[in-house]
Amino acid sequence: MTTLFTPHAPLPATDVTESLRPFGESRMLPAAAYTADDVFAWERRHLLAGSWFCLGRWQDLWASGATQRSALVGDIGVLLTRADSHGLAFANTCRHRGHELLPAGGAAPRRSIVCPYHAWTYTLDGQLQAAPGFREVASFEPDEHGLVPLPLRVWRGWVFVNATGDASDFEEHVGAMASLLAPYRPETLVPLARHDYEVAANWKVVCENYHECYHCPLIHPELCAVSPPTSGDNYKSEGAWVGGTMELREGVETMSLDGRSDGRPIEGADQHTVAYLGLFPNLLVSAHPDYVMTHRLVPLAPGRTRIECAWYFPDSSVDPAYAVEFWDRTNRQDWAACESVQRGLASPHFRPGPLAPNEDAIYDFVSMVARGYRGEPLARADAH
Amino acid sequence: MTTLFTPHAPLPATDVTESLRPFGESRMLPAAAYTADDVFAWERRHLLAGSWFCLGRWQDLWASGATQRSALVGDIGVLLTRADSHGLAFANTCRHRGHELLPAGGAAPRRSIVCPYHAWTYTLDGQLQAAPGFREVASFEPDEHGLVPLPLRVWRGWVFVNATGDASDFEEHVGAMASLLAPYRPETLVPLARHDYEVAANWKVVCENYHECYHCPLIHPELCAVSPPTSGDNYKSEGAWVGGTMELREGVETMSLDGRSDGRPIEGADQHTVAYLGLFPNLLVSAHPDYVMTHRLVPLAPGRTRIECAWYFPDSSVDPAYAVEFWDRTNRQDWAACESVQRGLASPHFRPGPLAPNEDAIYDFVSMVARGYRGEPLARADAH
Amino acid sequence: MTTLFTPHAPLPATDVTESLRPFGESRMLPAAAYTADDVFAWERRHLLAGSWFCLGRWQDLWASGATQRSALVGDIGVLLTRADSHGLAFANTCRHRGHELLPAGGAAPRRSIVCPYHAWTYTLDGQLQAAPGFREVASFEPDEHGLVPLPLRVWRGWVFVNATGDASDFEEHVGAMASLLAPYRPETLVPLARHDYEVAANWKVVCENYHECYHCPLIHPELCAVSPPTSGDNYKSEGAWVGGTMELREGVETMSLDGRSDGRPIEGADQHTVAYLGLFPNLLVSAHPDYVMTHRLVPLAPGRTRIECAWYFPDSSVDPAYAVEFWDRTNRQDWAACESVQRGLASPHFRPGPLAPNEDAIYDFVSMVARGYRGEPLARADAH
Repeated sequence: MTTLFTPHAPLPATDVTESLRPFGESRMLPAAAYTADDVFAWERRHLLAGSWFCLGRWQDLWASGATQRSALVGDIGVLLTRADSHGLAFANTCRHRGHELLPAGGAAPRRSIVCPYHAWTYTLDGQLQAAPGFREVASFEPDEHGLVPLPLRVWRGWVFVNATGDASDFEEHVGAMASLLAPYRPETLVPLARHDYEVAANWKVVCENYHECYHCPLIHPELCAVSPPTSGDNYKSEGAWVGGTMELREGVETMSLDGRSDGRPIEGADQHTVAYLGLFPNLLVSAHPDYVMTHRLVPLAPGRTRIECAWYFPDSSVDPAYAVEFWDRTNRQDWAACESVQRGLASPHFRPGPLAPNEDAIYDFVSMVARGYRGEPLARADAH
Repeated sequence: MTTLFTPHAPLPATDVTESLRPFGESRMLPAAAYTADDVFAWERRHLLAGSWFCLGRWQDLWASGATQRSALVGDIGVLLTRADSHGLAFANTCRHRGHELLPAGGAAPRRSIVCPYHAWTYTLDGQLQAAPGFREVASFEPDEHGLVPLPLRVWRGWVFVNATGDASDFEEHVGAMASLLAPYRPETLVPLARHDYEVAANWKVVCENYHECYHCPLIHPELCAVSPPTSGDNYKSEGAWVGGTMELREGVETMSLDGRSDGRPIEGADQHTVAYLGLFPNLLVSAHPDYVMTHRLVPLAPGRTRIECAWYFPDSSVDPAYAVEFWDRTNRQDWAACESVQRGLASPHFRPGPLAPNEDAIYDFVSMVARGYRGEPLARADAH
Repeated sequence: MTTLFTPHAPLPATDVTESLRPFGESRMLPAAAYTADDVFAWERRHLLAGSWFCLGRWQDLWASGATQRSALVGDIGVLLTRADSHGLAFANTCRHRGHELLPAGGAAPRRSIVCPYHAWTYTLDGQLQAAPGFREVASFEPDEHGLVPLPLRVWRGWVFVNATGDASDFEEHVGAMASLLAPYRPETLVPLARHDYEVAANWKVVCENYHECYHCPLIHPELCAVSPPTSGDNYKSEGAWVGGTMELREGVETMSLDGRSDGRPIEGADQHTVAYLGLFPNLLVSAHPDYVMTHRLVPLAPGRTRIECAWYFPDSSVDPAYAVEFWDRTNRQDWAACESVQRGLASPHFRPGPLAPNEDAIYDFVSMVARGYRGEPLARADAH
């Protein structure tokens, strides 16, 4: 039954070891990492629920005056509450007979949490206030039946939840990415566009594709026109993230079809580069001189991923079309490639291949996942 | 392959033990009992096919002059035949190459059973009459190739089949429920309405919801208006069933939106109470002063159940709308709650909760299932 | 993970042994052979990809001027290329990161194979020509990264691929069927009609149904009118195939609703019989005096098979309706029977039955499959 959820992923140890050899000698992850149901079930629990999963923007959660709402994190239902300005997270399951406290994706404006089945009632910070009918039961201790609390962090405008309750410290998780993103002050930017995609590929195939531009000359003519595909340079700093920067061509203001920006520069942001940063497990942040784009990945199945792509600007009067058109076209080019990789990986003749010199960020990502598969910490301890 | 079908359910023994502790100390069944594919597969074979599964009303089966018809019981195809006034059941699979004798859900009026593939022919009581081409085969013994007989019982108008052939005696199974239901003579009542529902919840969640009114104040305002939700009193008698009675409020004639009956009293039936009786595994009988309602459960998947709700009256001239409207509304309130419990149960933070004092019939049901999981007899041996 | 793919099918050895006893004492395959997901997965790899799977007609593959195209063989993606007049097959997966070289079912007219992801480029005979970015990597050996070649044979107009690369020799596989089919010169015949069916039955149920006419009197009145159902005679010769002949009734020219042919005799073909030959695993060839019909089976799931039925004539001016109408009607009668067998097999009360004297070709087929389940050679070594 639950033997599935051991500390180690259900993969042969030797296959994982191949991915951890030094860069230049290492290989891709084995095919089963991208295709097997049992690996995916393990990842939902250990890499998604078990890490710091991004649930989107804090502001978006409470737009309607709600005090509580529910969401799925990996394979675990979570209840988020807001008391004053801070947030809390709990398991979304009543301590009596397991009824959901809020329906999945639901929200409510009440000052307490009331299970709709038998009216067990909890405060917004999870204490059991009332359990009808149990007053007469001498052995019943309300304190033993509070909601199960889960770690939550709001950072730079985004909400992160660790739904298993046993992830590493959040600051350690973000590490050096914090200072790289600080100049963009993403929490102050205004969301002006969002596209939702569903892609027939494993979420890690999408991440790997994001972290190299080796493929750009073949499938991204528009991108290559504004940013040299060989201009990439990757960071090697502490934290559970991967990424680097690419330069804009001379005379180009930003990533757009004609290289012009219809917005305005973000104060303090580098005006000559774009940073591509992937925070494990599911938030990709692309920081441009004049806007920030995010891809939030929601893995649905070994070969299926929902991707929410959002664009943020320093000024709500901007027409975001110039950024959206460019990236929507580029996104779709990427999704087609990812879906084909997913099909190719399924062959028994597939052998994890070598990585090219300009695939070093993939190496960083793959070795981070491989450490996770072995039950080791995800975050790099320091620069190397 | 078939290691699945051991005498014990694929659940940790200690989890099941928690459900068998004395009332007040016991816990719900573990989550996997409601969600795991392997437990459901085990249940289809051992608790549904392996017990006395209700196939509906005997009269309905033969309405069209058929002598034979087929049905699915748990995971096993069954052929029912009618010779004169009594019925028989067989495995619906030819002894030659396994072709179905009748298509699933099919019926035929013939005096013998003819396999439509190679014309192997059987009598209505299952003897092989003819096997074309085998006359010349000296070693072929027709007696070795009769249909596999299965136990069938017609009781109070309903048909029950034990599709594995190894259930306990039917009288022992029904036990004391027989005398409780006798005054209503359900076999004489006329079916005047039927609703079919499909609910996204485990069949046992539906049963547990049926067996307590602790939730009534929150989700059933119409029910509470005619029957006090705390008026329940449960039986503790022998047999594989669970249930009790609830009182009608003073001046109320029956369960309906205005408390009035548009029918007439069933002679001999208690005019002040409603009996709610659940015969394992899939027939819930709600006996009112003036009508009997049944819920026949057909489990489809760990989280999916078809429910046939039928209303029976002592007189075919009654307009059943007063009973149907009341219960259709109440049914839908229950199905919404059951579906939310099903989602909440799926959380790893779900812990089987304590039962309230007025959830004693759930205790009876849960401990019956837990005994089944251990391969022990389902029926209570005597009052306790 | 991959323990599934052992040399032996995941079935109890004793069940398989029952199918290998001498004819007259043997039994059908066990139910799981037709219904279990794990057996089907094993078969896709070992009996379909692992044998000589028919991909259709060589001419049809290149109709549009393509030089390369892709197909699925069992569970393995294959890339077919054509250089001059001969064909080659490779695993359809790039040696770099596993991207498909061509999308499934796709085709291209290029003189080289270019992976659309990072432009790794291969010749039509599978050599790595270019791997951008690896020139600077001293340890990189292009010869180590050529495409994985797979055995391909064009025979009598059809293409056969062995997608695992470890099947027996093709001539040994075809054996004596070669000389039986030679007079019809199927490679010279013109395809004039094709029907595609999808049947809710295991592919082996379809084969077994094809290989006996014991069921003809019950479900094929049209067939019995032109060919006596008891006229069959089966071959016992070397090779991985099964089959025999049936006679046409006196005065009947071919299999059609009125027994007349609207075509013309195939020179050299027997004008009084029809040959029914099943080449393992998926090509059934029915050779008539005036046309050849094939059923190409594509197993989709344990209980689902796509069947491509095609009709070939010596002359493109023939109106094929007389042959198509007859066999389309007969095909549909067969599919209905196969689907019912599939449902009947699923019962726990199903026991593999005895074979009638006129089911000897089923015996040949079943024992061939049973040998495959034990990891033994499929082909009969010689006549017996």
